[in-house]
Amino acid sequence: MTAVDSLIKARWIVPVEPHGVVFEHYAVATVGGRIVDLLPAAEADARYTAAETIELLEHALIPGLVNAHTHAAMTLLRGVADDLPLMEWLQAHIWPLEARWVGESFVRDGTELAIAEMLRGGTTCFNDMYFFPEVTAQTALHAGIRAVVGMIVVDFPTAWAADADQYLTKGLALRDELRHQTLVRTAFAPHAPYSVSDPPLARVRTLAQELDQSIHMHLHETETEIQQGHDSHGMRPLQRLRQLDLLGPNLVAVHMTHLLAEEIEELAKTGVHVVHCPESNLKLASGFCPVAALLQAGVNVALGTDGAASNNDLDLFGEMRTAALLAKAIARDAGSLPAATALRMATLNGAKALGLDDEIGSLAVGKSADLVAVDLGTLETLPLYDPVSDIVYAAGRHQVSDVWVAGRRLLARRELMTLDAAEIRAKAQGWRQRLAGPPSHPGVH
Amino acid sequence: MTAVDSLIKARWIVPVEPHGVVFEHYAVATVGGRIVDLLPAAEADARYTAAETIELLEHALIPGLVNAHTHAAMTLLRGVADDLPLMEWLQAHIWPLEARWVGESFVRDGTELAIAEMLRGGTTCFNDMYFFPEVTAQTALHAGIRAVVGMIVVDFPTAWAADADQYLTKGLALRDELRHQTLVRTAFAPHAPYSVSDPPLARVRTLAQELDQSIHMHLHETETEIQQGHDSHGMRPLQRLRQLDLLGPNLVAVHMTHLLAEEIEELAKTGVHVVHCPESNLKLASGFCPVAALLQAGVNVALGTDGAASNNDLDLFGEMRTAALLAKAIARDAGSLPAATALRMATLNGAKALGLDDEIGSLAVGKSADLVAVDLGTLETLPLYDPVSDIVYAAGRHQVSDVWVAGRRLLARRELMTLDAAEIRAKAQGWRQRLAGPPSHPGVH
Repeated sequence: MTAVDSLIKARWIVPVEPHGVVFEHYAVATVGGRIVDLLPAAEADARYTAAETIELLEHALIPGLVNAHTHAAMTLLRGVADDLPLMEWLQAHIWPLEARWVGESFVRDGTELAIAEMLRGGTTCFNDMYFFPEVTAQTALHAGIRAVVGMIVVDFPTAWAADADQYLTKGLALRDELRHQTLVRTAFAPHAPYSVSDPPLARVRTLAQELDQSIHMHLHETETEIQQGHDSHGMRPLQRLRQLDLLGPNLVAVHMTHLLAEEIEELAKTGVHVVHCPESNLKLASGFCPVAALLQAGVNVALGTDGAASNNDLDLFGEMRTAALLAKAIARDAGSLPAATALRMATLNGAKALGLDDEIGSLAVGKSADLVAVDLGTLETLPLYDPVSDIVYAAGRHQVSDVWVAGRRLLARRELMTLDAAEIRAKAQGWRQRLAGPPSHPGVH
Repeated sequence: MTAVDSLIKARWIVPVEPHGVVFEHYAVATVGGRIVDLLPAAEADARYTAAETIELLEHALIPGLVNAHTHAAMTLLRGVADDLPLMEWLQAHIWPLEARWVGESFVRDGTELAIAEMLRGGTTCFNDMYFFPEVTAQTALHAGIRAVVGMIVVDFPTAWAADADQYLTKGLALRDELRHQTLVRTAFAPHAPYSVSDPPLARVRTLAQELDQSIHMHLHETETEIQQGHDSHGMRPLQRLRQLDLLGPNLVAVHMTHLLAEEIEELAKTGVHVVHCPESNLKLASGFCPVAALLQAGVNVALGTDGAASNNDLDLFGEMRTAALLAKAIARDAGSLPAATALRMATLNGAKALGLDDEIGSLAVGKSADLVAVDLGTLETLPLYDPVSDIVYAAGRHQVSDVWVAGRRLLARRELMTLDAAEIRAKAQGWRQRLAGPPSHPGVH
């Protein structure tokens, strides 16, 4: 008998790799936060003595979900302004609120609320872009969740930095601070083609190559952005990034609606990763990302929620479903983007986009034990012919019962283990009062 | 002090009518299953003594949701075959399974599972179309849920009836049986233009006019259907129904993708109701219903899930969100279909489509007490600037805590009061074994 830290037995285990496989009555054995074996539960009993054994009788165990595009702190702006045209939403609501309120405590409290929501929904890793990224990093480290924190760059001044040089300097200082951390890393995060000029983009390119860092950037989000690219640079934004030598496997391009056939080919050839944010694209009427065509061409497509101000949740279960449904309608083919592919986009493809696929994204011996248990014993997932179909098309994120990151249990039977839910709630209610005024009195609003 | 049966106090009450209004710290008073007052909670305490008082401190109370298009019994086929082109899905999977298994016990067990799921998700009324509608009606009556049961008509024989005449005869007999029921009623349900020929359609038209009954029918679901209409009748299906004098306020037309501008005008002029099933339309790659244009033209648009075999859930919270998101992208206008309109589609518009808007669909004095309490005290709905935004864009159906139909509490703190969840689960698992074979042994499938 071999000693292991924990043995997690589940009715189903969906390793994501190999693609389409489901193990029944299997177990995962972990040591030091890593998966050391994946085997039939009965064999596991004969082979291992575990410090902790967990039995998940009606659950599917899947890899932790990777949210490949967030603005976590913006969770404090969830629902503050909806159903407005994009520019009115930004200029009359979001930007003024951000200008007035964004600072360290906003970012800490908003990110903590976001992490609580993400863990409760099975997300174990998020790729963030926001101001005060050092606060985002601290908050993630405190919660024990995995994160890639963007070294944000924009041309204009904010509460965090005055100009592109200062953004980069502060970002690189954060990168240096985090150099011994395993769970929280950095990526360059030039905001978007319309908000970052050529010189800082060229510098990001050079630094990213030297330091082997990802570049996380909004790209081809709307037709307006593409039109602005023509007006200001005489070309489409993707073309401009090509000229700046930014197209390559370091680039994590978010949104990517409005793509030409030759652009899809170029993305495949250059190894650019695409992060699809279907619910944000729909809600802001941004356009349709041609997911089936991208996958067909061999492009790695991950999933993101975007910020809660434009979604309005950080729910990758919902995002998997919306992605799988929408891709079929856009491709006019009900066979497009099957359930197993949606789950792969939310796990392994996300890990690949962030350069973390040696570490996470699938359940394989040697990888980190970033695990999510989904309770499929509910009426809503009966009769249950295929657990992957039920996870993508019928289950809700509230069916996530347990979450581990690097072997550490962060959600246990729906309870957050590293975060204080009551304190998070009180802080969010405080921000509501500050942003929207005191609760109104009985009556109509 | 006046005696009432119950006083339900809620942090927010969203009456749906008047449109866009939210009452804070309000109460609903009911007598004999009807709403007799809607007033500030403090005033209610001073005015009424209630046999039962319920306090919903962090909840929004909304009208019961109306699922305007279901095939409830097909819940037993949830996830049995996914991600397939429509005709392969139907011909190679759904139809053979139905031919082999559909009978009274399939319809009873499937409908019971569906009702359990619907009640747990805040649906208090469903508009159904399936074989053995007398079993659907009995099952709904037993559960205490409100339903409109379709008197289905197709040209071809099934286990339930041999030809169009027999379908109609059996349907009318059911209508007669239900004549003293208040919660369960009938509608004519000719299946679709491609499955019902002109003579039975003409007979349905005449009977519906004589008996003042709704006509529930799939219409313009796919481009193929429209092409078939051209091939077999030399015209678009809508045009054919016009010639048969079927276009009018009795007609509840389901799906309605692929509409011409003049067809939208005609729907508005004739008062035809449209049932939008966004998730089914996406999953089967059927096409896009032009919801914003229909609403703009003044057409009454309700929401339906379709059957769980093509969705794969009976979740109107999900359907409200998908409808609100998708309409914006299709209309290319982020201001289209705001949250309050999505909620109205899932309540009052559904009631109107079924001819029940004098009885249900909004919280108004004199209407039936069909009520749903949604717990908004979760981290996922914080900070909570606007309860309607949170209900549509952030909440999940599992946040439904309590459900009443005609004043009777059918779900109490998530517990089903009239249905046996354990028995429903066991039966569904039995059907799984019959349809798909015994559970496989440890290993890969």
